[in-house]
Amino acid sequence: MTDKNKERLEKAKESLENYKVRINDFIEKYLAEKLQSFMSIEPEIGGELGELGKEFILRGGKRMRAAFTYYGYRAVGDKDEDNILFASAGMEILHSFFLIHDDIIDVSDIRHNMPTVHKIYQRKYEQMGLLQNFNADAKEHFGASAAIMAGDICCALAYEAMIESGFQAEKILKALKMMQETVRFTAVGEMLDIVKPLSKKAVTEYEVQQIQYLKTAKYTIESPLHLGAILQGTTDDVLKSLSEYGIPVGIAFQISDDILGIFADEKTLGKPVGSDIKEGKRTLLTIKALDNASTAERDKINSLLGNSSINQSDVKEFRKIIENTGAYQYSIDHAAALVEKGKEAITRTPIRENIKEILLGMADYVIERDY
Amino acid sequence: MTDKNKERLEKAKESLENYKVRINDFIEKYLAEKLQSFMSIEPEIGGELGELGKEFILRGGKRMRAAFTYYGYRAVGDKDEDNILFASAGMEILHSFFLIHDDIIDVSDIRHNMPTVHKIYQRKYEQMGLLQNFNADAKEHFGASAAIMAGDICCALAYEAMIESGFQAEKILKALKMMQETVRFTAVGEMLDIVKPLSKKAVTEYEVQQIQYLKTAKYTIESPLHLGAILQGTTDDVLKSLSEYGIPVGIAFQISDDILGIFADEKTLGKPVGSDIKEGKRTLLTIKALDNASTAERDKINSLLGNSSINQSDVKEFRKIIENTGAYQYSIDHAAALVEKGKEAITRTPIRENIKEILLGMADYVIERDY
Repeated sequence: MTDKNKERLEKAKESLENYKVRINDFIEKYLAEKLQSFMSIEPEIGGELGELGKEFILRGGKRMRAAFTYYGYRAVGDKDEDNILFASAGMEILHSFFLIHDDIIDVSDIRHNMPTVHKIYQRKYEQMGLLQNFNADAKEHFGASAAIMAGDICCALAYEAMIESGFQAEKILKALKMMQETVRFTAVGEMLDIVKPLSKKAVTEYEVQQIQYLKTAKYTIESPLHLGAILQGTTDDVLKSLSEYGIPVGIAFQISDDILGIFADEKTLGKPVGSDIKEGKRTLLTIKALDNASTAERDKINSLLGNSSINQSDVKEFRKIIENTGAYQYSIDHAAALVEKGKEAITRTPIRENIKEILLGMADYVIERDY
Repeated sequence: MTDKNKERLEKAKESLENYKVRINDFIEKYLAEKLQSFMSIEPEIGGELGELGKEFILRGGKRMRAAFTYYGYRAVGDKDEDNILFASAGMEILHSFFLIHDDIIDVSDIRHNMPTVHKIYQRKYEQMGLLQNFNADAKEHFGASAAIMAGDICCALAYEAMIESGFQAEKILKALKMMQETVRFTAVGEMLDIVKPLSKKAVTEYEVQQIQYLKTAKYTIESPLHLGAILQGTTDDVLKSLSEYGIPVGIAFQISDDILGIFADEKTLGKPVGSDIKEGKRTLLTIKALDNASTAERDKINSLLGNSSINQSDVKEFRKIIENTGAYQYSIDHAAALVEKGKEAITRTPIRENIKEILLGMADYVIERDY
């Protein structure tokens, strides 16, 4: 990496960290106020639903979606109103909505090093002695049911933050239209993620990339950038250019996240090592490994993917095959190439220079991982 | 019933039937267009998700939410633009979103005499031979996962219909704010419905009424009326009066629906007789019966509520206890009293006379049932 790129990366990280503090402060106050409205619907159960939703949303994360919303906003104009904090918060709350429903679907117990929403509900009501007559499946179903509702509420809160943002009504409507389109893309991506591994047909590299785009990349980078730019006011040409940055960089982020899912330790990952293998996730890593594997290696991968009883030594073996088949290096290189593509696109886009610098740094940031 | 009331009832039914034809035609065209957008995201899986959502939304129902949206709109002003069809469609699609998630939670297999969305997905993929390695629970989980996404998509489509309605932007924002508040109320109501039966404490009449209001009545009558009135333009006083009609009439509707749930035949019900008993639903009928029951009757009720293996003779016995304890008559009378309360409120509300007449008729309609 050149010194210039290193400098940009450091500045982007600093900017992200600063905005994270600002947005967390805002979200905390915003949700404390919203909690009151849940209490007023019904103090006990309504309050609990609001409280658990709030806890989950505040649990952490890098606040990339919030930051990209802000960068989109500042990329195309001088205005810097507090209104954009509402839109940024909306994108983070929308992210929580996706995660809550995704965790039910993936039967994930842990997220950000803490129990997932359906697990919290299940355990809480078990501890209160209210699920005594339930078998294991009925207990899980109870947790899932509560989490479906908690997710739905986060979705409503995300729209509400946008509605209350204080921007001009026409702009808010455009932003809301984009938000709900994002929900549709993400839901279709999630369905592809569920359905594709069921078929005996091998998942292609194109299909993996499509899932990565629809399920994650769109709402992580492209949509936030668009949302912010729309709220400042911009042209379709600029939106198109932002996509030419956001799509490849977003996919690179997801590739990098998938590598992390296999190679990181539990603390960095925020969930047990090997979860992605247990869930049978089809990633660039796995399909490339399958492409290049020997028969024995291929059988091993297929026996581990989607196997819920794998242990630490299985994970180690899986990693070794990923490396030996060149799938690891291929994924690293492919992510880097996508980042370069995004950087080229943003370089030739007529946006404000200081934001362009940050977006160049952010592109490197999304594939920078400590593992 | 007086002749005047009978005449109003018939006129309301005619009006509802006419609007049903109009809105079904609109929704069909609207969703056909939206389906294209799902196909363009991803033809196979995206198209399937859009297609199944469309089929479910078009499946039927009385279109009461659509009609109340229209009545709210026409109650407070002369304007009669096609824009209101978008808002009416939005409320019906929102209703489908609630039903899809509710059916997952209640593990219901049948809705409107056809399989529920999670069952359709499960069976379709079973028939395609893609769930061969799944045990029964994993198959159900697959269906539920797909239906969570289908519901989320309907939620997004409901907002979209509102966003695209063509009304003045400020009015749309107000309507959207109300729509998302409705989602919150309904989700809290659903949680109460899940959680209240778990406790050993008897559910009180107040709590039953609260669940009925939050889970159904609000989004069936009060919210659609408000939505329509907001889109025409109105005062807070009129909205308050519409609540004084919509809340009691909405609760009466739910009481009547609960009676139907126990006493109707399968065809009228659109799902197997006894489903509400199997689900252990706490209704005015069941809590009143428990209040007045002998020890033997109380034991019988408790042994049947939430029991998934009850048969036809159990249902008959349950019905008999409901009647013998006076719970049936109490519920009928209570619903009728609520309808009267709503009618009084609307009589003194300054709205257009022809809509007032229809709302008076609709109040009687919601408790008129053939069983």
